[in-house]
Amino acid sequence: MRAILKPEPGPGLTIRDVPEPEIRSDEVLIKVRRAGICGTDLHIYDWDEWSESRIKPPLVLGHEFMGEVVEAGALVENIRVGDRVSAEGHLVCGHCELCRTGQSHVCRDTQIIGIDRDGAFAELVAIPATNIIPIPKSISDDHAALFDPLGNAFHTVLHTEVAGRVVAVVGCGPIGLFAVGIACAAGAAKVIAIEPHADRRALASKMGADRTIDPTSEDVDAKMSDITRGYGADVVCEMSGHPNGIAAAFRICRNGGHVRLLGLPKGLVEVNLARDVIFKGLHVYGVVGRLMYETWIEMRNFLAAGLLDIEPVITHRLPLERFEEGITAMAAGEAAKVVLSLD
Amino acid sequence: MRAILKPEPGPGLTIRDVPEPEIRSDEVLIKVRRAGICGTDLHIYDWDEWSESRIKPPLVLGHEFMGEVVEAGALVENIRVGDRVSAEGHLVCGHCELCRTGQSHVCRDTQIIGIDRDGAFAELVAIPATNIIPIPKSISDDHAALFDPLGNAFHTVLHTEVAGRVVAVVGCGPIGLFAVGIACAAGAAKVIAIEPHADRRALASKMGADRTIDPTSEDVDAKMSDITRGYGADVVCEMSGHPNGIAAAFRICRNGGHVRLLGLPKGLVEVNLARDVIFKGLHVYGVVGRLMYETWIEMRNFLAAGLLDIEPVITHRLPLERFEEGITAMAAGEAAKVVLSLD
Amino acid sequence: MRAILKPEPGPGLTIRDVPEPEIRSDEVLIKVRRAGICGTDLHIYDWDEWSESRIKPPLVLGHEFMGEVVEAGALVENIRVGDRVSAEGHLVCGHCELCRTGQSHVCRDTQIIGIDRDGAFAELVAIPATNIIPIPKSISDDHAALFDPLGNAFHTVLHTEVAGRVVAVVGCGPIGLFAVGIACAAGAAKVIAIEPHADRRALASKMGADRTIDPTSEDVDAKMSDITRGYGADVVCEMSGHPNGIAAAFRICRNGGHVRLLGLPKGLVEVNLARDVIFKGLHVYGVVGRLMYETWIEMRNFLAAGLLDIEPVITHRLPLERFEEGITAMAAGEAAKVVLSLD
Amino acid sequence: MRAILKPEPGPGLTIRDVPEPEIRSDEVLIKVRRAGICGTDLHIYDWDEWSESRIKPPLVLGHEFMGEVVEAGALVENIRVGDRVSAEGHLVCGHCELCRTGQSHVCRDTQIIGIDRDGAFAELVAIPATNIIPIPKSISDDHAALFDPLGNAFHTVLHTEVAGRVVAVVGCGPIGLFAVGIACAAGAAKVIAIEPHADRRALASKMGADRTIDPTSEDVDAKMSDITRGYGADVVCEMSGHPNGIAAAFRICRNGGHVRLLGLPKGLVEVNLARDVIFKGLHVYGVVGRLMYETWIEMRNFLAAGLLDIEPVITHRLPLERFEEGITAMAAGEAAKVVLSLD
Repeated sequence: MRAILKPEPGPGLTIRDVPEPEIRSDEVLIKVRRAGICGTDLHIYDWDEWSESRIKPPLVLGHEFMGEVVEAGALVENIRVGDRVSAEGHLVCGHCELCRTGQSHVCRDTQIIGIDRDGAFAELVAIPATNIIPIPKSISDDHAALFDPLGNAFHTVLHTEVAGRVVAVVGCGPIGLFAVGIACAAGAAKVIAIEPHADRRALASKMGADRTIDPTSEDVDAKMSDITRGYGADVVCEMSGHPNGIAAAFRICRNGGHVRLLGLPKGLVEVNLARDVIFKGLHVYGVVGRLMYETWIEMRNFLAAGLLDIEPVITHRLPLERFEEGITAMAAGEAAKVVLSLD
Repeated sequence: MRAILKPEPGPGLTIRDVPEPEIRSDEVLIKVRRAGICGTDLHIYDWDEWSESRIKPPLVLGHEFMGEVVEAGALVENIRVGDRVSAEGHLVCGHCELCRTGQSHVCRDTQIIGIDRDGAFAELVAIPATNIIPIPKSISDDHAALFDPLGNAFHTVLHTEVAGRVVAVVGCGPIGLFAVGIACAAGAAKVIAIEPHADRRALASKMGADRTIDPTSEDVDAKMSDITRGYGADVVCEMSGHPNGIAAAFRICRNGGHVRLLGLPKGLVEVNLARDVIFKGLHVYGVVGRLMYETWIEMRNFLAAGLLDIEPVITHRLPLERFEEGITAMAAGEAAKVVLSLD
Repeated sequence: MRAILKPEPGPGLTIRDVPEPEIRSDEVLIKVRRAGICGTDLHIYDWDEWSESRIKPPLVLGHEFMGEVVEAGALVENIRVGDRVSAEGHLVCGHCELCRTGQSHVCRDTQIIGIDRDGAFAELVAIPATNIIPIPKSISDDHAALFDPLGNAFHTVLHTEVAGRVVAVVGCGPIGLFAVGIACAAGAAKVIAIEPHADRRALASKMGADRTIDPTSEDVDAKMSDITRGYGADVVCEMSGHPNGIAAAFRICRNGGHVRLLGLPKGLVEVNLARDVIFKGLHVYGVVGRLMYETWIEMRNFLAAGLLDIEPVITHRLPLERFEEGITAMAAGEAAKVVLSLD
Repeated sequence: MRAILKPEPGPGLTIRDVPEPEIRSDEVLIKVRRAGICGTDLHIYDWDEWSESRIKPPLVLGHEFMGEVVEAGALVENIRVGDRVSAEGHLVCGHCELCRTGQSHVCRDTQIIGIDRDGAFAELVAIPATNIIPIPKSISDDHAALFDPLGNAFHTVLHTEVAGRVVAVVGCGPIGLFAVGIACAAGAAKVIAIEPHADRRALASKMGADRTIDPTSEDVDAKMSDITRGYGADVVCEMSGHPNGIAAAFRICRNGGHVRLLGLPKGLVEVNLARDVIFKGLHVYGVVGRLMYETWIEMRNFLAAGLLDIEPVITHRLPLERFEEGITAMAAGEAAKVVLSLD
């Protein structure tokens, strides 16, 4: 079958024919129809330090996808051939104390498809049945393919109640843009997007942001103070991973408020813990993956109910073969979300 | 000053001139501009058993209102003459363990204006400064006057997260109608209103209900099962106080779901606790008043942000003098909310 | 193998040789060493209405037990032959929305061992690997055998924080007695046990109750008011299932407090919902089973840390063959917990 | 009256006669009987940078104390002359959105006695009636005087449930020692104290720590991994404020666990946010002050019930006049808690 492959250590990716995956008795085989390119895929393409330490080529990339079940293992009871599905790409052990107490998203034995084992940039992908989420007809293929990054945003925004609250989103890449839309749909009183790129601010407005702030030309702290009558935001979603974004996130959060960190900074970050966390009585939450499977059920309910339209975030649609165009557009900051098509 | 008065024990109310109230050093005096008629006012009008045991005439009625501050006691720091305000009508002791731990709404020494001391169906009303909520310009007088019953609905709906959940509202009097609108604004995936009166079902649809069910002609359980793929509603808000409504609330709630009881039944109610509460693992919450003052801040944020329009619930607007028309319309089931005007 | 069997519809139980169970590839086979007799087993013995509707003989009874793994299916990864284990006896579907969101304990497709399929009053029992809990050496066989009812008590008491709170336990059968001990171990400021039988009150004191109240000779409401300076208990655990116990539970709970219902009443129960639930702003929680598997991990941690000694609750130890003596003692109200031994 | 005074900017403190304070109509006057010396008092004694920017001499120091009410303002209803009391030393505005929603501990207009206005190292101190906590007879004067720092520890430890959990306390100054005792009393399965000074480790053991670790001679990470079977601590209370302590706190917390920061570091702290907070899915909470007044009620309940003995933490008792001995002992690391006596 065709697949986007990292054939050996080093930069670049290639399309190549590879053997079809085989499934265990508790897995299903999925014919992939759509897949999203993630920032992580760019890192693997570039072969950065993290990739070098983690990725063992040859490896099929891709962890955001949807498709149709074409085969189900003998022990699989609730999923049938023909089901239209997406899937959680984090494969967890299922029997550690974290997995047994609703915290699978931080299982220490997590394996990620497209990173630790073959992924979904291929005609077929094998996935444990526990990880499968059936998709109702009312959700389009393109949108279902984005449940992985969309789930990151849901996990972040809905960690505690946002209805009637002021929510700030720092950094409007695809997940930040999703977060803006989710906060609006969940009844946030005000949603403020903070983002240096004008086109992303425009997308944030499309997703429903009440205000956007350009941190390169505006005084973020002063603006936020104005908007919140001096209190600061109730909830700040840090999606940039940039040290300046992180510092701003702590500063613009109100006393007693919530900062959620999803954007990944490199190495050590300097934080004024006494002034910005302790004296403010902040709640800080590190967001990794999606809650299994609260996030998935919520996300599906939102999309099926039409509460949220993620269409503006998809800026590029390409056939699998033209994946490099997508990577180039993302690297150039010209793309928000790129969806690859396999049919 | 003019006031609607229960002059002595017995049915009926009268408009009469009464002395102006005096304020303590920690109170403010408010010139009332709008006031809402509550179902409780009808009970007092009718002089039912409860009224007879609780009300000590002469008493000025009225606990839903807004107006303008015309005088502030010497110790009042944060409220000024001229402020446009509404107020929590439950006056609590402030120093018991409940009041000191964020549970003032269940303080055992609560006094309610218009019930235990003179209320707001009058040109002037005296209120402790702690109970005052300033109202921003973007919220109209009529809507600000309804913060008391609207707050009941907010307290009920937002007790736990409803974003992405299925919410059923049983009974669509004014508070039930508010609840429908709030659930929609807070991102509920589906909002179902269950109500026998066709005009109230129509109002529920106007407030945003995705479905309405007539329990007199439809099979509520079967409908709810269809809508929820057999699970039942995640959250059920019981606003009818009717034994049938209460029984339905428990039945249509999903296993592990939340039933919130606000409607007041008379006397003992038969509940199948083993089948409907214990084996289902339900969470049941009794809703009284409004959280002081989380509910008030949330409510103000929702209305100021334009997330919720409560206009459809106001069916009658009358000058104070014509209050009996309002009471008659409510008693006949022809009115949802009646707002009295004093200017 | 030997097993305690309900051979056909009707009262009574018999010991008989039955075929050994076979396991699926995701199950393990356990050689049973200890098993506890539950009140439910008495109902099945007596063949009451509920038993008649639910039990399909022939059936091996027993759902409280511990033992040693003697065989593991091909797909079982984390459990080994020789492991000393107890097990959750509720077998759930694993793929409904409740199971996927941490609410397996209310899965609608639950099957219970000893009720819906062959149980643990036998030399061998087959259990899905997901349901197995390894037991550390510091926990004795007898105590490990009681994780099922002990877990009911943990689920009830630790539903919300009890540290520094006043906890009342209504009804001191084995689960009520466990609840007393757990509340003490978890830092409750006062634990009050309400129970008509003198010997059970004595056991409650042994388990750590600060006070006991005999509802047949003392004024429960007055005593509780004295003990709590008029507030009522913060948390009430209703373990009796008796209408009087349930009514008392609601009355003695403080405004805004928590009532947890575990005892199973028969049929409809009259509740003064307006006075006792709504005006008090109560939180009521129906307790079924154990949280999978938060409760199991907590329980194991408590016992392994020596925080709780459940020894006083075990009043009888008998070999399997003498099970009828245990049933007789329980029916006569002479026993708290009866542990059967198979070695 | 006698008082310990910072008479003018610069190092040192002096005992001097100062005028008696006058009370407002909503305040009470307290005759101080006992007062505790806090680390903050040492900073003011030394006149460090923070003191220079915040303290406006002349100022009476002291914010940990207890005494007897000798006068009550005209508006004070629930406190009487002769009451034995302690008090929250953070004086908040009472009407901002934080104060009105149960978050007074982070009110932006907080004034602290002994820092922003005259404090309790004096024969008399004036305190708003809202801040007063009556003390039952079963709690000794010395212990009641320590409710301020003890409350910091309660706020930290009980932020989320610790019953059955592994709790690590990093840094065993007085508040850390209190935290150890509280965690034990609240049913923690294991309490581990990490502290370089041998005498403080000994005190931690006295307070109930199951294990102590000397970070200067032992491998903290390896020990913690051993103790927790590789998972890490469920809850880490950072009480040292030292960069190494903070770094360790993040490292030894399990995935999905809780880190609470109370110790105040100076300036910027380097944190590996990606590795230690985000990928681990941590919950971090900044602890300031005490919850008003949940923490006070809980604390009083614990001490009155005899769940916790804080006696070992008091290493020095001195008359007010000999306060410098206390300061010297604290500065030398020879004292845990020093209690000053005024009778």
